[in-house]
Amino acid sequence: MGEFDLIDRYFKRPVTRNVVGVGDDCALLALAPGMQLAVTSDMLVEGRHFLPDVDPFKLGHKALAVNLSDLAACGAKPLAFTLALALPQADAAWLEPFSRGLLALADAHGCELVGGDTTRGPLNICITAFGEVPAGGMLLRSGARAGDDLYVSGTLGDARLALDVLRGSASLPFELLETARARLEQPTPRVALGLALRGVATAAIDISDGLVGDLGHVLRQSKVGARVETALAAGLMAVPGALDEERQLDYVLSGGDDYELAFTAPLFQREAVQAAARAAGTAVTRIGQIEAQAGLRLLDGNGQPIERPYRSFDHFA
Amino acid sequence: MGEFDLIDRYFKRPVTRNVVGVGDDCALLALAPGMQLAVTSDMLVEGRHFLPDVDPFKLGHKALAVNLSDLAACGAKPLAFTLALALPQADAAWLEPFSRGLLALADAHGCELVGGDTTRGPLNICITAFGEVPAGGMLLRSGARAGDDLYVSGTLGDARLALDVLRGSASLPFELLETARARLEQPTPRVALGLALRGVATAAIDISDGLVGDLGHVLRQSKVGARVETALAAGLMAVPGALDEERQLDYVLSGGDDYELAFTAPLFQREAVQAAARAAGTAVTRIGQIEAQAGLRLLDGNGQPIERPYRSFDHFA
Repeated sequence: MGEFDLIDRYFKRPVTRNVVGVGDDCALLALAPGMQLAVTSDMLVEGRHFLPDVDPFKLGHKALAVNLSDLAACGAKPLAFTLALALPQADAAWLEPFSRGLLALADAHGCELVGGDTTRGPLNICITAFGEVPAGGMLLRSGARAGDDLYVSGTLGDARLALDVLRGSASLPFELLETARARLEQPTPRVALGLALRGVATAAIDISDGLVGDLGHVLRQSKVGARVETALAAGLMAVPGALDEERQLDYVLSGGDDYELAFTAPLFQREAVQAAARAAGTAVTRIGQIEAQAGLRLLDGNGQPIERPYRSFDHFA
Repeated sequence: MGEFDLIDRYFKRPVTRNVVGVGDDCALLALAPGMQLAVTSDMLVEGRHFLPDVDPFKLGHKALAVNLSDLAACGAKPLAFTLALALPQADAAWLEPFSRGLLALADAHGCELVGGDTTRGPLNICITAFGEVPAGGMLLRSGARAGDDLYVSGTLGDARLALDVLRGSASLPFELLETARARLEQPTPRVALGLALRGVATAAIDISDGLVGDLGHVLRQSKVGARVETALAAGLMAVPGALDEERQLDYVLSGGDDYELAFTAPLFQREAVQAAARAAGTAVTRIGQIEAQAGLRLLDGNGQPIERPYRSFDHFA
């Protein structure tokens, strides 16, 4: 199987929403009047972002999901994506399920594969995804204001817990592991929630490196601080009593790979936030408040400060 | 140096032409009314696309140049790009010149770095570049018509010749090697020519896998054939008498890594083609003609068919 056969067989499909797709020097995207284009790029490397024995179908899903999660955090509607792929060999037994997983998620979001590149090399998946937002309507990291409520969607910590179980450093009953593993291997990008939060949230970010680290980006860029009631945050993780409280909090606050949204909204939008959550079919939990004083203050169930440091995931630290 | 320090130090710069740049979940691009967005993505892998000891400054240049070459082939004006980078380690001695080489070419084309990703892994550079084209005005591979002239820009074969010299399977006098090596390591994307050919060329492609292979894409997608006078094509390569004619023709027809444009235009546009070449400061040579009969016919200096097969570069063949 040559390079162009590979592209034709697994990745070339007619585009309907976009102007030109796979098979020219460039793909061509058109935007509706008044819309702007949100662009995000994520690179997944074997051994860093996924285990070597991961199901290729799930990997195809995840590679796109992490990009759609960035679009969601900006309130962008998915439009198209490119795929650049380095493969050790052209292996149909891998490419077939990988492309199915990738394109199933793409179809579910009306997000078309419009171009890319394939080459031989150590397995590397680089997706750049495009979404449309009304001009001036993108959800930014910099919009949080003192007094805003702080929310997170879904549950935090499950993916990191699953990773530790798969690595043998934690244990879970089988059914719970399956649930947590699905969170790790097939995260659900909160696209519908991001769209529903347009005009409601003041700032948003997707949680990929852990709540503490990613919330830190929002606080720095918004020039504010926050108080987080960790008892509320910790309550999000569906974990049995097997985990001690401290470790559970580690997972929730700095586990990473959550692909949930953290966002802020003014108090007067509380009903609108809940309506957005219902419309999107995604639970959201209010976990704290934005404050004028810089820094992140973590409080325990008794309102006492937690002084343990939590670090964000960093590929080079 | 952590991941975010690395991004801040080497890759984060204020954007002026685009709406949101590095530092949010997505970058944000706006298009002028009546314009569409051309998108291309290229992934460069160590040992496949560049030698491990290549100068990082030149590598930064080349990583963007190969993408700008795709924009050029579509007649698109460079606007922005994203960079996803897998690095074995955060090495300032590599990152500093790499980012300088990358951003120098970007600045020369007014093409802003708006986002991307960094991770640890085997060295891999994935750039996705964006350019604007007037709606309906993109140069496609599918527009060649029987009777059109066939042109190439610049010279072909130099990059592959340099690679063979560096690998020890060919030799060149030092000054010529330097010239050829610059073609290999710092190709000049023909952006100005692509822009000047809007409304003049009927089809265009950038030559990255060799003239025969890339021209083949144009012929298949345009459902036509072509006759190429190889004596004209061979005359393009600035190589001394040291190379025998057959090998010289190999380099010219299937060397690869040329990043020149092959394009077609109707006979009545001959003067317009030459005017575009002058305006862009890039030589173009008419090397043959598009014909209704499918297939590519290579003719020697006496007009006799050359029957040797030439293959296009294929990462998986």
